[in-house]
Order: sequence, then structure tokens, then C-alpha cells
Amino acid sequence: MTREELFKNILRKKSFLCVGLDTDIEKIPQHLLELDEPIFEFNKAIIDATIEYAVAYKPNLAFYEAEGVEGWIQLEKSVEYIRKKDPSVFIIADAKRGDIGNTAERYAKAFYEKMDFDSVTLAPYMGRDSIDPFLKYEGKWAITLALTSNPSAEDFETKMTEDHNKMLVDTMPLYERVIRTSMEWGTTDNTMFVVGATRAKKLAEIRQYCPDHFFLVPGVGAQGGSLEEVARYGMNSHCGLLVNSSRAIIYLDKSERFAEAASQAAKETQREMAGYLSEKFGD
Amino acid sequence: MTREELFKNILRKKSFLCVGLDTDIEKIPQHLLELDEPIFEFNKAIIDATIEYAVAYKPNLAFYEAEGVEGWIQLEKSVEYIRKKDPSVFIIADAKRGDIGNTAERYAKAFYEKMDFDSVTLAPYMGRDSIDPFLKYEGKWAITLALTSNPSAEDFETKMTEDHNKMLVDTMPLYERVIRTSMEWGTTDNTMFVVGATRAKKLAEIRQYCPDHFFLVPGVGAQGGSLEEVARYGMNSHCGLLVNSSRAIIYLDKSERFAEAASQAAKETQREMAGYLSEKFGD
Repeated sequence: MTREELFKNILRKKSFLCVGLDTDIEKIPQHLLELDEPIFEFNKAIIDATIEYAVAYKPNLAFYEAEGVEGWIQLEKSVEYIRKKDPSVFIIADAKRGDIGNTAERYAKAFYEKMDFDSVTLAPYMGRDSIDPFLKYEGKWAITLALTSNPSAEDFETKMTEDHNKMLVDTMPLYERVIRTSMEWGTTDNTMFVVGATRAKKLAEIRQYCPDHFFLVPGVGAQGGSLEEVARYGMNSHCGLLVNSSRAIIYLDKSERFAEAASQAAKETQREMAGYLSEKFGD
Repeated sequence: MTREELFKNILRKKSFLCVGLDTDIEKIPQHLLELDEPIFEFNKAIIDATIEYAVAYKPNLAFYEAEGVEGWIQLEKSVEYIRKKDPSVFIIADAKRGDIGNTAERYAKAFYEKMDFDSVTLAPYMGRDSIDPFLKYEGKWAITLALTSNPSAEDFETKMTEDHNKMLVDTMPLYERVIRTSMEWGTTDNTMFVVGATRAKKLAEIRQYCPDHFFLVPGVGAQGGSLEEVARYGMNSHCGLLVNSSRAIIYLDKSERFAEAASQAAKETQREMAGYLSEKFGD
């Protein structure tokens, strides 16, 4: 998918909502546990209930791997199900992978060939070697961690870094160096950055040097980030935002009516997003 | 496994060799591809051929994930096979995971409960939130990426970082900050660091501030690192080294005699290691 296509989908659905499929076997409604594939059944119901309001889905792989082979099978089925239901949806493997060379190529193969993901989240620690293999697939995206929404982002991500390789020393936080450096490796059609919603005002700063890229923004809802601020500080000429919500949509209700609750929450979020899109791009 | 137990295994086998099971379906001998589970069959033969000389095995998960569900099944079987063959062997999931909170807990569950790994390699970018959940399992280890052996480690790992949170500004490379900071989160019984063999002289520097921890050292062999230098600069009072070799052992020979070739290579490496151990600890 190109940036232009993603933007068109956003305008068509009047939504930049990404639904996080953090499907935790310990949190889904009890009655599903009697079924053969409770994770897939849960996802299917959530997808049916929300796909009208969402332009992207993001399974976090940890929850699937925790269930071993059965989890992996249900992940594959969930991706197929989304693709069949709406081929235009942008599907993100929230895998936070970060390995190098032929190993990274294998991960790319897993997500882009074995499964039909559009993108993978990546940890930048090991540098370009860990990102490049994901940029070689036409139409696929690397989503690099930059400034995350968790408290311990302060341990390393926000530390000031220096570059002494040039005559001048340039100083900037690690996350800024990650963004500036990896902007040079890819294009606005294959590179996104993760910027947490709990740091909405930082979005305005980051937009100064990274005006055109898409950001994947987690942390709205359960983690306390404000959608209104994210839209105000982060939106660009192509919307440039995918805002993820997981717990605040998928775990609202633990009864047999969980899917209706998810649908209602996704719809409310979409309505709010439609407002911000309309302010910026008209109706 | 405690550090003391790992050290005892090293002395007993006179080896600190870790065999990297980077089992690539495109690189294993052709005749195995006719079998139902070629990856597992390859691993079984390699394990049988090398377990006398190795104290650790390290499957890199990318190669298994690239084969989807079948790969995952063969990974589980390989781990079980190692454990059955020699319960004292230290098994590393080279997964380079790095996620936070309840997600990281799920990864820990996948590797420590669903499968019987002793340890997982972790990317430190997101900070303590991404390491802590792996330290809560008695006898299990977090192996944090510090200074890796790939060229683009220079992009971020070796950049100088500043900490302005204290009255004094302290300046050090990112990898040093990762080591110093994460030493405080765990103990020498549950925390190791990845330091590439291609940077053997850095090992001596790192030993100045990190004398007691184990290091997992990739990059000997195919990537050009010297075992002799790694032993000279990196060994501590408990050996403190697991040196990984993958391609230089498992892909030496593509014929039906691949396992003998692997056995011979592992044996030669073990002999060299026995020499360094004997110099330091006697016979």
C-alpha cells in the first residue's frame, strides 16, 4: 500500500483508527473458552464489529506466541480474515523485531510472504541492518519505534546523544536521532514511526523535522493519551496518523455482548476522528 | 540455572561453546528436504553431533517463524530434544524481543512456560519495562543486546549519550549506558549481555565496569571475530563467556556427512576453549 492509498482509505472511512488485537486468552469473555479457537473467534467478532470504523488492525504478536503453535495458527487465520473482509485494511504485525542481515530477511519473509501483513514494528537499536530488509518489499512498510508511551522510555529513548563523526557535534535525543537517521533509509511510502500518544506535545516538535511520514500512535485511551491533542499536534497533509486503541475497544465488556460494546466504542472514536479530518480536509 | 551451575557445566565440558541453530531451510542439505520436518531433522543431527562439545544452544527464532506454523512446531521439538538429550544445556531463544508490560509478560510466558528455554535475547530500546518481566522467573535469564557485531551498530549503539538528570552530566556510549543501567535491574544470576566478538578489545573496557556478568558473544568464525582475543579480554572468575558459533559449525558441509563436519568443527572449537579454560582455572 502506498501513502496515497492509505490516505484515501482514511478519507473514505473518515477514520484513522487502528484496532489493537492484543487478544489475551486470560481477558476474553469466558464463554469463548469452550470453543476450539477462542482467540480467532474473539478476533473474528471484534473485526466484524469494528471494520466499518477502522482503517488498520494491529495484532501484538506476544499474545499469540504465548499460546504456542495454536496461537500462531489463530494469528494466521485472523490476518486472512481481515484481508478477506476488507482488502484495503492496513495490517500491522506489532512484533517489535530487531535483528540483522539474513535473519531480518527471514522475519520479513514470515510477515510479508507467509502471512499477508502490510507492515511490521521494528526496534532500531542495532541500526540500519535491522531495518533495511523490511524496506525491500514493494508496498510494505517498516514501522520503527521512536518515542514510545511507556514510562521507561526515559531510560534510553529520551537521553541526549552526540554525533562526533562530523566536524560539528550535533546533539539530540536518541528518539530524534532514530527518526532523522532512518528517514534517510526509506521513503514516506515505506517508513512510519511509533510515537506514543502520552507525549502528544512532542508530536508537534517531531513534525518540525519529520513533516511527511505517517506515525503509528499508541497510548490513546487506557494509557491516558488524548486523541484531540494527537490530531492537533500530529496531523499532516496526508493525515499522517494511525491511532491505535486496544483495551479501550476490545475489553470494554466481558459478557456475550462484548462485540456490540467494541462496535460502539470504535464508532465513537471514528466519529471524533471524522470531526478532526473534516476540519482539516473538508467533507 | 544459576551462574554457578552454568560455570560448573562449562568446567565439566571444558567448553563455553554455544551452537547457533540458525536453521535456514534454504541452506540445509538437499536430501533433508524430502523429510516431513527437515528443520527438526537437521537440528537433531546437529545436536547429536555437537552436544558433547557445547554448553549452550541458540535457535534464532527468525528462521523458524519464516516457516510459519511448521517452523514453530519444529522449534518446540528442537528445544524438547536438547532438554531430553542433556538437561544441563543452557538454551537461548535468540528472539531479540522488546515490548513492555503485559505484552513482555506474554513473551516471557511463551519462552519460559510454553517452551523450556533458559533465556531470551532482548532489545533494550524501550527501557526497563521491556526487561523486567523476564527477570521474574526463578532461574531464567534476560540476555540484553549491548554492543552487537554488525556494522550498523555504529548508527546508535556507539553514539555518545548524556545523562542530565543528575547535577553532573555523565557521558558514555549508548551500549555502556545500557549495560550500566540494566546491571541495576537484575543480578549476575539472571542478566547477561550480548557483546560481539568483532569488538573483542571493547570486551576489556566493558569488563572494567561489568566484571561479573556473563556475556553472550556472537561473531566468532563467519563474522571474523577471534576466539583467542575474546577469551583473553572477556573471561572472568566464572568464565563469563558463552561464545556462539553458527554458520562455521552447522553449514560446513552440504552433503549427507554434514553432521560429522559439524561435530569435527565443534570439537576443534571446544579443544581451543579447553586450552583457555585450563590456563585460567587449571585442569
